[in-house]
Amino acid sequence: MSSAVEPPAPSPTRARRERTPHPAPQTIAVVGFGNFGQFLGATFAAQGHRVVGCSRGDYADAAAAIGCEYVRDANALLDTKPDVVVLCTSIMSLSSVLARFPVDRLAGRLVVDVLSVKEYPKGMLLEVLPESADILCTHPMFGPESANVSWAGLPFVYDVVRLNSAPRVHVIGKQRCETFLDIWRLEGCTMVEMECRVHDEYAASTQFITHTTGRMLAELDVKTTPINTRGYESLLGVVDNTTKDSFDLYYGLYRYNANARAVLDKLETGLSALRAKLEAAERDERSKQ
Amino acid sequence: MSSAVEPPAPSPTRARRERTPHPAPQTIAVVGFGNFGQFLGATFAAQGHRVVGCSRGDYADAAAAIGCEYVRDANALLDTKPDVVVLCTSIMSLSSVLARFPVDRLAGRLVVDVLSVKEYPKGMLLEVLPESADILCTHPMFGPESANVSWAGLPFVYDVVRLNSAPRVHVIGKQRCETFLDIWRLEGCTMVEMECRVHDEYAASTQFITHTTGRMLAELDVKTTPINTRGYESLLGVVDNTTKDSFDLYYGLYRYNANARAVLDKLETGLSALRAKLEAAERDERSKQ
Repeated sequence: MSSAVEPPAPSPTRARRERTPHPAPQTIAVVGFGNFGQFLGATFAAQGHRVVGCSRGDYADAAAAIGCEYVRDANALLDTKPDVVVLCTSIMSLSSVLARFPVDRLAGRLVVDVLSVKEYPKGMLLEVLPESADILCTHPMFGPESANVSWAGLPFVYDVVRLNSAPRVHVIGKQRCETFLDIWRLEGCTMVEMECRVHDEYAASTQFITHTTGRMLAELDVKTTPINTRGYESLLGVVDNTTKDSFDLYYGLYRYNANARAVLDKLETGLSALRAKLEAAERDERSKQ
Repeated sequence: MSSAVEPPAPSPTRARRERTPHPAPQTIAVVGFGNFGQFLGATFAAQGHRVVGCSRGDYADAAAAIGCEYVRDANALLDTKPDVVVLCTSIMSLSSVLARFPVDRLAGRLVVDVLSVKEYPKGMLLEVLPESADILCTHPMFGPESANVSWAGLPFVYDVVRLNSAPRVHVIGKQRCETFLDIWRLEGCTMVEMECRVHDEYAASTQFITHTTGRMLAELDVKTTPINTRGYESLLGVVDNTTKDSFDLYYGLYRYNANARAVLDKLETGLSALRAKLEAAERDERSKQ
């Protein structure tokens, strides 16, 4: 740990806070150390884990400020012999990051993804990782915006996709996975164990609908007025939150969730059906006049 | 006032509460004594006004329970010599209610409407009322669901459309109108003086958008899931609130607000534009592979 390093003035969102120390600290490699990687890394480190970030950019100062180490080379990262490797790339870049990663060196480790879609990384990790790598697919349903102060009560969805079945190794791997899950339990997350397929069905009906609605309304350039209703205020909140996220994330939710297209179809059909009802009522009214 | 009448056990939403007494009580006729008419009448009466409801149905008991009188005949209503006649019909029935109302007997009175669209009743009242009737068009932007406990801070939109210009009469009419507006000021409403035309522009961009979004999502049969995001919870709230209102109200917002069709067009265009952006990003991604 970089406890010997005097951290530069941390930004308020990255400030180290007192956390319940984790009873069994791990060495955790974080691949992709952007906004979300740092957000997770800060809490891992605050629990007492050794956290080593790795990205192509220079995040050494940012890492030091939150009690993490930092390297720019994947082999240097793996030289730290991490128990767990957390992939914190965007949906869009997962494939290219893995293509240039020394995946053979992930043999015997626990590999975790944290993407907002789940079937896609599950399939890819099963395809490219060595058979002895354990796989845990997760979706922490919060981020720096929504969980700056605390993760308590926020949903952490996970699916233990693969544990090495060799008898003695299996017990150790299972324990390592539980130890990693304890991080989220310690923070008070609502733990939701759910198959990747089921996650994607729910996520299309919730997260993707919400982002689509927010972005549809943003296309209309909706604004606050002197006569906002409470319902309208709620919609303005949704527009604000969804447009704060990048278009790339939204595109990822669409492109890499097999259910998203059907939801988009249903929204279009729903809006048309509603208009048809209004127009039918209008014809009905006119026919009575 | 029916203070001699022992009210039957009032429902919780209609219970008489202590209110600041109005300094200049008026006699207020309420035409249309359904849910919304009773909601307003209860507060008028609690402030010390004499309130006389009138509808085709039998609401005598409901009226007594909230300190109001009740008649079923428009002539009997006008025999009470009301200072103010508040039209509490639905948007859809305004025209037919006025067609069978002895409108000539509204001469010299203040006539108020409370509909969620404003240009439509303004035009109709200017057309059918005697010239000596004053006209106040209003939109209390709340109802029994959203303002059961208090009206404080909720928007009351109004437009003094016409005051009889005869010199002495004008002063009296203006005072009568201010006295009526004091009802809403006493309850702590946010008073928003706004032309009917401007109201309808804002309302199409806020209230109609909100109802359309809620009803579009209701067409998809959206439900709570184990992995709701906060934004999705907001949308579920909007669906719940907008579908509690009748389809007739929604249809009225569409049919009798000249800006509603354009908003519906914009929503359809917004959704198509969003889909086009996703599909363009998809083509772009594939062309790079």
